[in-house]
Amino acid sequence: MSVPKRKQPQWDAPPTSSNGLRLYNTLTRQKELFTPEDGNTVKWYICGPTVYDASHMGHARSYISFDIVRRVMMEYFGYRILHVMNITDIDDKIILRARRNHLFNLYTEKNPSKEIVLADLEEAMVPFEKKVAKEEEPAKMEMYQKAFAKIKLLKAALSKAGSTTDDLKALLEGAKDPISEWQDKLHGAEVTDNKIFNELSAYWEADYLHDMKSLNVLPPDSLTRVSEYVPEIVAYVEQIVANGFAYEAQGSVYFDVKAFDANPKHDYAKCVPEAANDLGLIGEGEGELSSGVGKKNTQDFALWKTSKPGEPSWDSPWGMGRPGWHIECSAMASDVIPGKLDIHCGGMDLMFPHHDNEIAQAEAYYGCRQWVNYFLHTGHLEIEGRKMSKSLKNFITIKEALSQYTSRQIRLMFLSHSWGGKLDYSEKTMAVALHTEKLFNEFFLNVKTEITEHSRESKFGKSEHTLCQKILEAENAVHAALCDNIDTPQALRCMKKLVADVNAYLLDSTRTPSPALLTKAGRFVTNILKVFGVLPKNGPEIGFPTSGCGDVNVEELIMPIAKAVSDFRDEIRSEALNREPKDLVVLDICGRYRDDVLPEVGIRLEDRPNAKAIVKLVDKEELRRQKERELEIAQAKEAKRIAIKAAQEAAEAERREKAKIAPSNMFKSRTVAGGASEYSKYDGKGIPTHDGNGEELSKSKRKNLLKEYTKQEKLHQGFIAMSMN
Amino acid sequence: MSVPKRKQPQWDAPPTSSNGLRLYNTLTRQKELFTPEDGNTVKWYICGPTVYDASHMGHARSYISFDIVRRVMMEYFGYRILHVMNITDIDDKIILRARRNHLFNLYTEKNPSKEIVLADLEEAMVPFEKKVAKEEEPAKMEMYQKAFAKIKLLKAALSKAGSTTDDLKALLEGAKDPISEWQDKLHGAEVTDNKIFNELSAYWEADYLHDMKSLNVLPPDSLTRVSEYVPEIVAYVEQIVANGFAYEAQGSVYFDVKAFDANPKHDYAKCVPEAANDLGLIGEGEGELSSGVGKKNTQDFALWKTSKPGEPSWDSPWGMGRPGWHIECSAMASDVIPGKLDIHCGGMDLMFPHHDNEIAQAEAYYGCRQWVNYFLHTGHLEIEGRKMSKSLKNFITIKEALSQYTSRQIRLMFLSHSWGGKLDYSEKTMAVALHTEKLFNEFFLNVKTEITEHSRESKFGKSEHTLCQKILEAENAVHAALCDNIDTPQALRCMKKLVADVNAYLLDSTRTPSPALLTKAGRFVTNILKVFGVLPKNGPEIGFPTSGCGDVNVEELIMPIAKAVSDFRDEIRSEALNREPKDLVVLDICGRYRDDVLPEVGIRLEDRPNAKAIVKLVDKEELRRQKERELEIAQAKEAKRIAIKAAQEAAEAERREKAKIAPSNMFKSRTVAGGASEYSKYDGKGIPTHDGNGEELSKSKRKNLLKEYTKQEKLHQGFIAMSMN
Repeated sequence: MSVPKRKQPQWDAPPTSSNGLRLYNTLTRQKELFTPEDGNTVKWYICGPTVYDASHMGHARSYISFDIVRRVMMEYFGYRILHVMNITDIDDKIILRARRNHLFNLYTEKNPSKEIVLADLEEAMVPFEKKVAKEEEPAKMEMYQKAFAKIKLLKAALSKAGSTTDDLKALLEGAKDPISEWQDKLHGAEVTDNKIFNELSAYWEADYLHDMKSLNVLPPDSLTRVSEYVPEIVAYVEQIVANGFAYEAQGSVYFDVKAFDANPKHDYAKCVPEAANDLGLIGEGEGELSSGVGKKNTQDFALWKTSKPGEPSWDSPWGMGRPGWHIECSAMASDVIPGKLDIHCGGMDLMFPHHDNEIAQAEAYYGCRQWVNYFLHTGHLEIEGRKMSKSLKNFITIKEALSQYTSRQIRLMFLSHSWGGKLDYSEKTMAVALHTEKLFNEFFLNVKTEITEHSRESKFGKSEHTLCQKILEAENAVHAALCDNIDTPQALRCMKKLVADVNAYLLDSTRTPSPALLTKAGRFVTNILKVFGVLPKNGPEIGFPTSGCGDVNVEELIMPIAKAVSDFRDEIRSEALNREPKDLVVLDICGRYRDDVLPEVGIRLEDRPNAKAIVKLVDKEELRRQKERELEIAQAKEAKRIAIKAAQEAAEAERREKAKIAPSNMFKSRTVAGGASEYSKYDGKGIPTHDGNGEELSKSKRKNLLKEYTKQEKLHQGFIAMSMN
Repeated sequence: MSVPKRKQPQWDAPPTSSNGLRLYNTLTRQKELFTPEDGNTVKWYICGPTVYDASHMGHARSYISFDIVRRVMMEYFGYRILHVMNITDIDDKIILRARRNHLFNLYTEKNPSKEIVLADLEEAMVPFEKKVAKEEEPAKMEMYQKAFAKIKLLKAALSKAGSTTDDLKALLEGAKDPISEWQDKLHGAEVTDNKIFNELSAYWEADYLHDMKSLNVLPPDSLTRVSEYVPEIVAYVEQIVANGFAYEAQGSVYFDVKAFDANPKHDYAKCVPEAANDLGLIGEGEGELSSGVGKKNTQDFALWKTSKPGEPSWDSPWGMGRPGWHIECSAMASDVIPGKLDIHCGGMDLMFPHHDNEIAQAEAYYGCRQWVNYFLHTGHLEIEGRKMSKSLKNFITIKEALSQYTSRQIRLMFLSHSWGGKLDYSEKTMAVALHTEKLFNEFFLNVKTEITEHSRESKFGKSEHTLCQKILEAENAVHAALCDNIDTPQALRCMKKLVADVNAYLLDSTRTPSPALLTKAGRFVTNILKVFGVLPKNGPEIGFPTSGCGDVNVEELIMPIAKAVSDFRDEIRSEALNREPKDLVVLDICGRYRDDVLPEVGIRLEDRPNAKAIVKLVDKEELRRQKERELEIAQAKEAKRIAIKAAQEAAEAERREKAKIAPSNMFKSRTVAGGASEYSKYDGKGIPTHDGNGEELSKSKRKNLLKEYTKQEKLHQGFIAMSMN
């Protein structure tokens, strides 16, 4: 080696990784490797709500799940996302709801008399009953029947002499649906003020956005309202007409499905080709106020609807009218994101016709083959294993859910279901979520205690090498789970396994645990929970935030004080313990503060023999809820105990009653169904020998009766003995 | 289209992205696509410090830069990193420094006399001067000359008659280097206690870790100390010997470079093949205490060094000795990360021989072709455009830098240099960093104000479409910059451009700005600064953390806890007061916590008789500052008091002097400017009648002089009276 090698030796490049995010794409019905069109930016459109009522768990299903998908793609996979969502504030449902509410209010504001209301209701019920008669779904029929029964009762109450204005109010409220629908038929066409429609949608938009904030769902980067986009929509429709894929008919414009599908570049119904001819779905998509007059084919759908009186309207080349439902998404998405979308998503109920029509419109507009690269749909929602619906009485609004559980708990439940599969919102699945929350919280508290107690890092031993390996395995397993269509249930399982591994590691008290490894594990789990939106991004590096504040590291602020309290108590307590005899008064105070007072201010102390107490900061709200749940469990136990006792007492009372009967009389009063005596002849003791029809009883029967007699004889003797005492 | 298409239509997969992180790899001298060996986990070893002195900007250069690289890989690219760093706590520099410090202390503790020190110094200077004479670097020569000159002066001062013990101390301190080196030559071999070496390295390890924390450098997941790894190192060396790539010679073990390089599987000096024969570098790498006795070839380097007396030693198959410098990294890295490393990094001064020897050792140990996939080296550090060195008087410790600038400012300066290039720490580059900090801060404040003022999102107009596009461009540009070898200067430029774009957008006051887009821009810039470690991860979503406590009401947070502490103490205290006799031990604890402990955590208690204590929350920092201010005020008052008293005493002394003069003499000594007598004739009492020129004085002048005379007469009479007492 006297001559130095002047050249760099060969370098072996590591094998390129096939590791990458795969997403289940409705357009191919399989998981596809995700690649954005434009570098690291993901252009994403999500179908927002139609705002005419309170948001419910069906909305939560879609928006929480896609929020999780979005956060994982941003915070875990590092994509930059341009996120656009629409608000459907022009829609037949909104029109009808707004008009009916408005007309019902006008009707009640006139303070109609009892007689007028009773008479009007006769009239109002006729068309309502007809409509209901057409209903085929049994659950809905049942709901209507109940409503009818209720109205009948309320009517009867009001019809009585001496009924009050409260009875009148109750009937009006109970019969709101038939009355407002009847009024709408009479006066709907007179409602011309657009403000009436706007106010309703603005109210429910704000309510929806508030619910989303409560659920910790990130707001979109751009929020598009149909009512603000009418000119762009008109231009979009004009372009589709110009491209030969739509036609005007009597003031409406329809999409020409046949022409589109015949074009070799295009395919209609990419999401659900099987549904392309489903007239039921097509009709629902067109809306309650659509006539469909002038359609060339039944599959054709409205891009622009001519407005009848009583419907809001805007000017267009085809006369006054309003946009069809599907066109808004194509037009507004194209305005904020010109060209291709990387991701389009929505609830699975929107697949056909809404999403398929959106695709057709945009591809007809651009003249392109593929407008959306990845179409994602959330799976079904069930409530306690059944479909959610008002008729099934399991319709839950977001606000109702939030009154029972925290946003964090609900999100943990969502995370334990895959975003694309079935989600069951039930007491059972929520109990699992609560357990998961507690598991992680205890893990964080333990880890933090150990880290505080041991600060100097020492050399890895066998346990540390093992734990280090387990941490790497967990990290890679979570990575693989998230790459696999963002499989959060699997990711949670991997994290729980790591928690168990760390707990096992901490059980070995013979050696000092490694603060660096505990930090690594604690930060990893915290970080993934932050990615999932379970913990706030600006919360502590390890663990749950101790109170809901941003900027400040609360732990840093409070921990020194908590330690000072604990130290003080430790000194006092150790002094009391070392007295001869022990100072029980002082120890009692110490115990009371540990158990009752300090937890109330978020400090949990765990006393140890011959060592300082462990100090843990806990969320006092969570502690309160936990106490409540414990109380509930205790109450349930107590109720069960009382019920068992009552049953026992009832059985005892029955036994006592039975004991009063002399064995000689016990069979004589017995009857068969119908009332006839069961037996007709008895022996000297009163034991039956012949049945009611005079037939002699079989031997085995008589043997059984004798057994019964002997038993009663014993029982009755007991009664006599007791009576004589 | 009467027959529905049953099949899913064709889907076009988007083109797979070639976007990915590329890192400049010393092993290929070009940027290579980064791929970890094992899924998403990056196994990373970084050369830690040799701990024998304070950490300086050379350390900062490496550790801050690699902290930035590590954070970007974790927080931006989403890699999970297993990060291992060693502490070199066995090393010739440590041995020499510890031994010399120890022997110098022993020497001075004996309180040698002036004569002994002067005589000893004569002896001590001889070898020192010889060593210095060999020095070839002009800057170092100049430094030595200055040191000599200083010693000469101090010697002269001490040699004078009447020199003090301070002069003696000054000489000892000034001549510490020659004295301790001379003592080491005489007594070094007598230093046998390993504790002396351990204490020095433990001290400087803690100091280094503290500096790193101050610089916001993340700690490693595993910290390995050579002193804790000797058995593993011995086993590692044994394996290399067994594999035929090392040999024992007189108690030392050397790596057989020739055998290794001759093996077709291996190449020696992969980082710097050009240096493979550089004997200067090889010698430096071997250390000052290495003899190299028994080496087969000059390129061979020590894996195990036999220890001479005065050097710490451990048992081994080759006798008592210690690990060579390079072997520790190969062995410890392999213990925590068995097998291949994804990344190994260190300062560029370590390339050869240290890193090349590490590679050779590990590849010889494993019998593998490539131990490290990516070898990263930070670039040069300059101070004001020149190399940093003690001789150039521009040697800056981390603590000195932190006394001038905040950690955030220093990091921003580092970010504006590429990690692999030249870094200039200078007033100019720091001024740029300060400007950058201000620019971002102003941007965040503006954006936050606008977001607070406008909360409802309205439709995108032309400016919003443009701004949205600019945000996407900035995001993609930053992504491209980070992919390109983590080019932070370019990323900062892109972010500054976005700041300018947003500022321009906000200048258009004719329309309401979009809060969603401002949020998007603000969060993006904040997020990247969080990734870089400039802003804390748990800081606000937009902007710098506010010192103190942003939106949290600290009082609301802390007061309940403070009250609970106080209540607890009240109960305990009242119990102690009511005992007969009073429980003084407990009362003492209560008093101590009130006076010393609780104020330290910001709680001030004021006890009251028969009532709960008053609880006040105080800012402990403010409390400290307040105490300081009070002290300053008191000191100023005292200084003023002393000054006034001095002035009064001076005035009194003057008055007393004046009183000694008899009024008859008082005018006779008076002169005018130039020295001539002011007066020429006097009356009987000695009061002037004519001025120096013989002119008679005016009446009014004589009246004034009479007044003066009368005053002095009184004063002088007082003096006579006092003198006679």
